[in-house]
Amino acid sequence: MGSKKKDSAAGAPLSELLRLPHGAVDMASLDARATPGYPGKGKEDAPVHTAGLGRRLSDLQEMLYAGGRAAPEVSPRVLVVLQGMDTSGKGGVIRHAIGLVDPQGVDLTSFKAPSEEERKHHYLWRIRNALPRPGQIGIFDRSHYEDVLVVRVESLVPEDVWSTRYDEINEFEAGLVAEGYKLVKCMLNVSFGEQKARLAERLADPTKYWKYNPGDVDARKKWPAYMEAYAAALEKCNTEAAPWFVIPSDRKWYRNWAVAELLRETLAGMGLAWPAADFDVAVEKKRVAQS
Amino acid sequence: MGSKKKDSAAGAPLSELLRLPHGAVDMASLDARATPGYPGKGKEDAPVHTAGLGRRLSDLQEMLYAGGRAAPEVSPRVLVVLQGMDTSGKGGVIRHAIGLVDPQGVDLTSFKAPSEEERKHHYLWRIRNALPRPGQIGIFDRSHYEDVLVVRVESLVPEDVWSTRYDEINEFEAGLVAEGYKLVKCMLNVSFGEQKARLAERLADPTKYWKYNPGDVDARKKWPAYMEAYAAALEKCNTEAAPWFVIPSDRKWYRNWAVAELLRETLAGMGLAWPAADFDVAVEKKRVAQS
Repeated sequence: MGSKKKDSAAGAPLSELLRLPHGAVDMASLDARATPGYPGKGKEDAPVHTAGLGRRLSDLQEMLYAGGRAAPEVSPRVLVVLQGMDTSGKGGVIRHAIGLVDPQGVDLTSFKAPSEEERKHHYLWRIRNALPRPGQIGIFDRSHYEDVLVVRVESLVPEDVWSTRYDEINEFEAGLVAEGYKLVKCMLNVSFGEQKARLAERLADPTKYWKYNPGDVDARKKWPAYMEAYAAALEKCNTEAAPWFVIPSDRKWYRNWAVAELLRETLAGMGLAWPAADFDVAVEKKRVAQS
Repeated sequence: MGSKKKDSAAGAPLSELLRLPHGAVDMASLDARATPGYPGKGKEDAPVHTAGLGRRLSDLQEMLYAGGRAAPEVSPRVLVVLQGMDTSGKGGVIRHAIGLVDPQGVDLTSFKAPSEEERKHHYLWRIRNALPRPGQIGIFDRSHYEDVLVVRVESLVPEDVWSTRYDEINEFEAGLVAEGYKLVKCMLNVSFGEQKARLAERLADPTKYWKYNPGDVDARKKWPAYMEAYAAALEKCNTEAAPWFVIPSDRKWYRNWAVAELLRETLAGMGLAWPAADFDVAVEKKRVAQS
């Protein structure tokens, strides 16, 4: 609990190393193969480092959960937002990083193309409905950012509509933070070349056909437009209250470790504590002894 | 995938060893400290055996999930029902056994005392609403069985109401099985003595106060009535379509391993297969290569 030990060999917290600096964003300059802050050698020792993280994450998550049960009104909540191009590994992060945590403490929502019902509402309606309950770690697999990414690239609404959304999203997120949410916005940054290799892998292995969608190649053909949309979303919505983290994701082992470590740092920084007993411990000890 | 290797040293599948025989149930005769089918030595090698299970469970779960995506209408669904007295370890099983599986494939519902809205409906209404989607492993932490357990012991409805529910539950479950659900009903059997030790442990450790509820001692005072209610539920609802498994739960490491292994056997017995491509693989390979 509250261990001071850091997993980062470099000394700086990973949240500082991966935090997107303010200002203009040039996607091409973000190195997708980098491994900043990784405390080990590489792929070969990643399982050991990740397992060690798992134990600490698990303890912190239990404290968050306990707080949510004891005092739901004031309990802090955590929301991890995962965005990234196809094959960047949103699913892999959920399986390998979020999977380290007790499923009872995880509230996962995967946002697909909005349903007919959802389309009748403001685009943030379904997002609000999916916010995690007290003591929970919410995970958004895609999010409201789709409303300035695919929606912008595919012109699903006119520019004068999507262009107002950045400010709206900033306001929405600032509101969440004011309400006690801790946001961890992760952009999983996969390179154009690595995406091609991963799509080819899926087609080379019949156990991976189900992950392949011909539409992914269509989106790939619009890579520059997507990078432009990502750059705008990262730049315009990189606020103090809810900053962006860009996770180099060409190496899966680093990506998974990094998101787990970011989550651990977030929880460790929340000043969590075990809730006090809301009963008389001495009395209850006697009752149990006599039962 | 579909590996024939068994984890059970005794040769017999765990589902046979733990399956409740038909006929009258005497709770006192069910040994809560037994470890039937465990392939290792005991507590010391349980982490290794459980981790091994984790890898196989994970592969099977991914196949189930893939099937749910490819053909939701015909996809089989799995529902694990967890019942047991306080401290029997429903939460521990979810953390340590269900936690082995990708969170994307797990659909967990914890049933508390019914809300005002839920009370307006038939008691199976909220159960139906929580059934897992195609390709998902549903986990019920408590279930419709509370409506013949706490409801019976505490006389929350008259006997002529709860006494009709056993047949109703059997019919409901048979309907689920006919619709393609695979049910794994687990009764976590903790002994009266072990429950006392676990309650005392919670009171001896401030990091566990949040798990302690004075009401648990009240329920403990009604242990014989609860055992009678459990015996009736186990006996009357132990059908061919949806049999009961009784998990000896005084040893946590065995309990967690056993539920994970039961789930693995269930998935392995479902004849799962990777979905075929619903696109032309050769064409797509060319498209990716040219992209």
